[in-house]
Amino acid sequence: MYSIRCISYAPDDYLETAPSSIGECVDQVESHQCTWIDIAGEIPPEEQAKLQELFNLHPLALEDALAFDQRAKVEEFDSSLLMVVRLPESGENQVRHFDQLAMILTERALITVQQTEADCFDQIRKRLCAPGDRLRRKRLDALAHALVDAAIHSYFVAIEAIGDELEDLEDSILDQANRADRQNLFRLKRELLGMRRRAWPHREMLSSLSREELIFIDEATRTYFRDLNESMLHVIDLIETYREIAGGLADLYLSSVSQRMNEVMKVLTVTSTIFIPLSFVAGVYGMNFDTSVSRVNMPELKWPLGYPFALSIMAMIAFGLLFVFWRKGWLHND
Amino acid sequence: MYSIRCISYAPDDYLETAPSSIGECVDQVESHQCTWIDIAGEIPPEEQAKLQELFNLHPLALEDALAFDQRAKVEEFDSSLLMVVRLPESGENQVRHFDQLAMILTERALITVQQTEADCFDQIRKRLCAPGDRLRRKRLDALAHALVDAAIHSYFVAIEAIGDELEDLEDSILDQANRADRQNLFRLKRELLGMRRRAWPHREMLSSLSREELIFIDEATRTYFRDLNESMLHVIDLIETYREIAGGLADLYLSSVSQRMNEVMKVLTVTSTIFIPLSFVAGVYGMNFDTSVSRVNMPELKWPLGYPFALSIMAMIAFGLLFVFWRKGWLHND
Amino acid sequence: MYSIRCISYAPDDYLETAPSSIGECVDQVESHQCTWIDIAGEIPPEEQAKLQELFNLHPLALEDALAFDQRAKVEEFDSSLLMVVRLPESGENQVRHFDQLAMILTERALITVQQTEADCFDQIRKRLCAPGDRLRRKRLDALAHALVDAAIHSYFVAIEAIGDELEDLEDSILDQANRADRQNLFRLKRELLGMRRRAWPHREMLSSLSREELIFIDEATRTYFRDLNESMLHVIDLIETYREIAGGLADLYLSSVSQRMNEVMKVLTVTSTIFIPLSFVAGVYGMNFDTSVSRVNMPELKWPLGYPFALSIMAMIAFGLLFVFWRKGWLHND
Amino acid sequence: MYSIRCISYAPDDYLETAPSSIGECVDQVESHQCTWIDIAGEIPPEEQAKLQELFNLHPLALEDALAFDQRAKVEEFDSSLLMVVRLPESGENQVRHFDQLAMILTERALITVQQTEADCFDQIRKRLCAPGDRLRRKRLDALAHALVDAAIHSYFVAIEAIGDELEDLEDSILDQANRADRQNLFRLKRELLGMRRRAWPHREMLSSLSREELIFIDEATRTYFRDLNESMLHVIDLIETYREIAGGLADLYLSSVSQRMNEVMKVLTVTSTIFIPLSFVAGVYGMNFDTSVSRVNMPELKWPLGYPFALSIMAMIAFGLLFVFWRKGWLHND
Amino acid sequence: MYSIRCISYAPDDYLETAPSSIGECVDQVESHQCTWIDIAGEIPPEEQAKLQELFNLHPLALEDALAFDQRAKVEEFDSSLLMVVRLPESGENQVRHFDQLAMILTERALITVQQTEADCFDQIRKRLCAPGDRLRRKRLDALAHALVDAAIHSYFVAIEAIGDELEDLEDSILDQANRADRQNLFRLKRELLGMRRRAWPHREMLSSLSREELIFIDEATRTYFRDLNESMLHVIDLIETYREIAGGLADLYLSSVSQRMNEVMKVLTVTSTIFIPLSFVAGVYGMNFDTSVSRVNMPELKWPLGYPFALSIMAMIAFGLLFVFWRKGWLHND
Repeated sequence: MYSIRCISYAPDDYLETAPSSIGECVDQVESHQCTWIDIAGEIPPEEQAKLQELFNLHPLALEDALAFDQRAKVEEFDSSLLMVVRLPESGENQVRHFDQLAMILTERALITVQQTEADCFDQIRKRLCAPGDRLRRKRLDALAHALVDAAIHSYFVAIEAIGDELEDLEDSILDQANRADRQNLFRLKRELLGMRRRAWPHREMLSSLSREELIFIDEATRTYFRDLNESMLHVIDLIETYREIAGGLADLYLSSVSQRMNEVMKVLTVTSTIFIPLSFVAGVYGMNFDTSVSRVNMPELKWPLGYPFALSIMAMIAFGLLFVFWRKGWLHND
Repeated sequence: MYSIRCISYAPDDYLETAPSSIGECVDQVESHQCTWIDIAGEIPPEEQAKLQELFNLHPLALEDALAFDQRAKVEEFDSSLLMVVRLPESGENQVRHFDQLAMILTERALITVQQTEADCFDQIRKRLCAPGDRLRRKRLDALAHALVDAAIHSYFVAIEAIGDELEDLEDSILDQANRADRQNLFRLKRELLGMRRRAWPHREMLSSLSREELIFIDEATRTYFRDLNESMLHVIDLIETYREIAGGLADLYLSSVSQRMNEVMKVLTVTSTIFIPLSFVAGVYGMNFDTSVSRVNMPELKWPLGYPFALSIMAMIAFGLLFVFWRKGWLHND
Repeated sequence: MYSIRCISYAPDDYLETAPSSIGECVDQVESHQCTWIDIAGEIPPEEQAKLQELFNLHPLALEDALAFDQRAKVEEFDSSLLMVVRLPESGENQVRHFDQLAMILTERALITVQQTEADCFDQIRKRLCAPGDRLRRKRLDALAHALVDAAIHSYFVAIEAIGDELEDLEDSILDQANRADRQNLFRLKRELLGMRRRAWPHREMLSSLSREELIFIDEATRTYFRDLNESMLHVIDLIETYREIAGGLADLYLSSVSQRMNEVMKVLTVTSTIFIPLSFVAGVYGMNFDTSVSRVNMPELKWPLGYPFALSIMAMIAFGLLFVFWRKGWLHND
Repeated sequence: MYSIRCISYAPDDYLETAPSSIGECVDQVESHQCTWIDIAGEIPPEEQAKLQELFNLHPLALEDALAFDQRAKVEEFDSSLLMVVRLPESGENQVRHFDQLAMILTERALITVQQTEADCFDQIRKRLCAPGDRLRRKRLDALAHALVDAAIHSYFVAIEAIGDELEDLEDSILDQANRADRQNLFRLKRELLGMRRRAWPHREMLSSLSREELIFIDEATRTYFRDLNESMLHVIDLIETYREIAGGLADLYLSSVSQRMNEVMKVLTVTSTIFIPLSFVAGVYGMNFDTSVSRVNMPELKWPLGYPFALSIMAMIAFGLLFVFWRKGWLHND
Repeated sequence: MYSIRCISYAPDDYLETAPSSIGECVDQVESHQCTWIDIAGEIPPEEQAKLQELFNLHPLALEDALAFDQRAKVEEFDSSLLMVVRLPESGENQVRHFDQLAMILTERALITVQQTEADCFDQIRKRLCAPGDRLRRKRLDALAHALVDAAIHSYFVAIEAIGDELEDLEDSILDQANRADRQNLFRLKRELLGMRRRAWPHREMLSSLSREELIFIDEATRTYFRDLNESMLHVIDLIETYREIAGGLADLYLSSVSQRMNEVMKVLTVTSTIFIPLSFVAGVYGMNFDTSVSRVNMPELKWPLGYPFALSIMAMIAFGLLFVFWRKGWLHND
């Protein structure tokens, strides 16, 4: 299943059709200056062959545009320019995936191929539709720029969302580290890793677009791509920063676990260290030595104040130890 | 809300006005050699358009100057030079944030745009005010240099403050690591990370300013920018060094927590290991075997010196174990 | 032991022989445009000398092709081009090893040397066999490209397998970290390390093949090698990503072990802290002070409700402590 | 407070004076080929102005030479060459600090500025004093080289001292890790960090001195600077190596702490696990069930061999557990 | 103490002498095309001067050749080429150290200086001795190549030995981590660090030898040096890989220690948690409340089945807890 949307535009003209096969686009392309052929979904092989033939595309250009796991890149062929970008898109259940947008720029047409239709390009369609928009007065390279711009903007959106999650996580870990935090942290680190992997190649791509003289790319548009290059550097900066923050949170988590183990240990130690000697004293006076045999056999048992005496010894031991622990600072949290 | 301050100066002339709109500046710019238009706050869209038109600015230059989350950079346009710097400013409650200073250098005016007025530029205003100051004898590029210089100086101030905090933290951790230390350390690491992210792009910017022939930047001023480039390298050096020190403190914190857990464990182990055998001995002599049935049933209970005998055994066990622990070095702190 | 397979092809011609010595290949090479001499196993010294002589190879080229622990590389000699690639191949028991494929491209022959026959090249033999295949219409450089392509494809297969194992491992560690996980994780990290070491040099090799004008490599084929270079970057990207994921899993493992130690400690602490005071109370009332000597010697023992009183105290202590632990959150898992 | 030492030399001439102000040096400089003006301490502002004027120095050159927190660098001005090096100097109490040596090389004078007089340059003064020394036959650039050489040599001395300390630390940690080790390790890591920060910029400086054609630096001297560049690479190598060794020691320390905690835990576990069941048995036979009520109520108490029987059970339990622990390897240190 | 060995060779000529001083070599060098002057040990100053004079060496070349702590390098002087390599040599007790081989290549002589005679060059001496060897037909640059080749080969030998040790260590750590492992691991990490430090500079050296046109180095020999450069990259690859494996082993060690602590803790917890409640029950029935005062005072003591009842309660508690622990998976090793 695939769908085609064919938009032709000029400063004072606009035509949008939804042809059912590639062949039907040709006329529209022929009769207009700028046509955007927007294909979503998998193109069947026979249509691929037609596409290559009708627009005279290099086989590698088409092959790369149709393979859905490409790195971002720009490649110049004889009569076309291939650009590939990857854009993060948050699906259901907070799971982010990376859509691919392949653009083949020819003289009169910009052919874009996507696996699914990304929402972030709606805005651009609306702008083309509006009569007075700046985009409509420009050529296809400006349209390509607008699409790449929208793709890069979606990185900022995705990073911001991750940043918010990291902030929540930090509060949660500082408060009381639990298992869910650990799992979330691990997930976010993975996402940042994936995002970095996808974002990184854009740098080279945009650097080429802003410096080299590429076919069909105007000098003026090049200045705009230079600006996008800046933005991409910013994206990568942010990803690296969040990656380091996530790494810091992992350390924080570990030290939080250690800290709590410390606390648990202190409770155990304080309790045991106080009661074990007391129990020992009680145990001593629970011995069954025969007091009638001699005077030295547990005379305390026969003292009129033997019991209060034993209790006092116990209390002294307990308070003495408590004092020691208080001095060591083990009785208050830290 | 935004405010404009318009300062024109020459070696023997000084005029400061506070126009309420961009349009009012034009005359002053026309009639003076050097005018500094200092804008603070958000400029409403209609004023933006006027600004672009009156000073003939490139749309991208103005757009970048007005977006308040830019990386430091210098960009040359047809008839203007855009410079953006970020400067750390310590707000209330010790929270540092990063102000943006955008400068657009044109032939007769230096337009600066800031979100809020940074205190660190007061000094420069005073110098311009003073009749004999060197700055007043120079052109607008020297003023731009002075502003960048002040911005970079504020990095040193901020880093020094962080360095002081780290030193306090080290003392605190070596003495007795506690939770507040951990939180502070994490905060400082984050701040250093943020500072590095903002400082880093200045390197490229200052390197351009000191090497390339840029519009309106004098050869002599270029030498001064070369010196600022040195300073920025120094800033980044310091940030990296403090980052590594912070990393070392994190390790110190962890090892401090482990060390204390070790101590807690030793107290528990020493107490338990001594008293558990003693309690066992007491327990044995607390058993109720009938001594009248046979001679081998707990004859100790009937010994005249049974009780002292039992106490001696306990004392021997206790001192024996204490000796063992003393030999192992568990009784003194390390 | 070694075997030779000699395949000559042209658009409308195909001949496959299995000569028993190098000498027998010469005629076939002479009489065809394109011949692929596919050698597997160790070549005895006298045959090596013959190979060098008959095809006029540089001594270093042959030496490198026959040494089975080379890094991937391409090297140009006077009348031949040496290419070496390493490809992961999963042997029995999940153990991956790295085969070496050395290719010497001369004018009329492509000599390939392998230690063992890799399965991943079967596909190419079949394509050469098929009359209409594109490969058959091309020269030997296209065949070399196809072989390198197959080798790089085997990296993707191997990485995917590792990725699957890592995913299983993550589930297992999040569920219940055990020793086997640790061993598996260590093994996977080692494999990724080994794979990176073998994959890395391909980058340089493919970059040379796609940029430099090398002997016998066609301009058109160069474009195809540029595409392989992309793929190799992708391979290295993936390896690095999985390496970081494996590193994250190691941290996860450690924190999982800590977490479980924490749990064990909490069980110990809760049990001990509750029962040690209770036992102490029981111990106190097990003391043998003579109640007949005075009224203050353990009067509770003679109270009509002494036993329920003691049990109530114990219950109060137990519930009090349980409440404290519940408040601390030690009673529910986290 | 500052002091000046003014040394003029030629192959057959030597004059050393100690003028009280800059002005007094001028005559001596005028009348000799090579004069070394060696200033230590802070120069008062009016003298600074005089210095700049008399030797016609660029304001930035002087400013950099007088600021005492510079990175090592070489900078060429119109008629002078500024070189700045930082050298480690071990003060009292083992605390190393970094002196700055700024050198301004002009045609007839080498002006050096230091905060305090470093001992490592005494050797050079002595060599200048000695009639036959090679240094005396050469120009001022050779003197500058000799000073830089001495500065770099002091890095080797400092690193060697740190290396010795690290070796002692390693022995101490392997033997018995204690708190002082931790503090020392942290201090050494900080020192290495500081040393790296100061050493690093020398690389660029020496690389400039050995490659670029700089004013007043002879071709032959350049070869000697090339050799110093080698040495500096060696210095940085060593610092990095020691930094990694220090990092390894930190890990060793942590694992040593864990190991000891393990040991402590094992002692606790072995003792508790043996005596707690024994105490339980003793506790059982300390129960007060009325043996007269029925035959099944603790008949062991009335057995003629009840007590030996109970003791045997305890011994069996104890030896059984000891055997288990011995099998587990918990009884011997590891 | 030092020894000289003087080998002159030509395709059909061979002369080996052992002169007692440098001066005696000169005649032999004059009368032969290729002479290898092989010096081992420290050369006394007067002989150094003679060496420099007789062979017309640059002072820096000789100085570098005689200093025994150089980084590997190649340096071209007016009439000689200095090459320095470092080679690992396993001394007694498994301690590896790094010998230095300095080579000065002049027109008719190759002067090599070593601290001690390395065994790995024996092979080359034998080859020179054999009449038909390829080395004998070539010039001195081929001899230099052979020496460097032997040096690099000794890296492979050393790395292989370390690799074997690491493998043994891995088995030992996976089986039962002990202190000796920790010490060995630390030693191996240090050795790898040292080896990397020594190996690294060879890269630059061999890259120069294989690319630049250096004096006395033939075009053909350059191709062979290119091959050595490959080998050195391989060496460095291996070192890095083993370093990462060693790092992984350190983590494995730590997690192994944690794991064992976990085990120890579980034994303690299971034992304590089972027996502490049982002891409590026994303690309760060991209390001395007067059963004659009221019916509610410990009536169990008078029950005919009181003792079996108490034992049953204890058994139930014990089995109940064992069941809980079995469910938690604490009873089987993991």
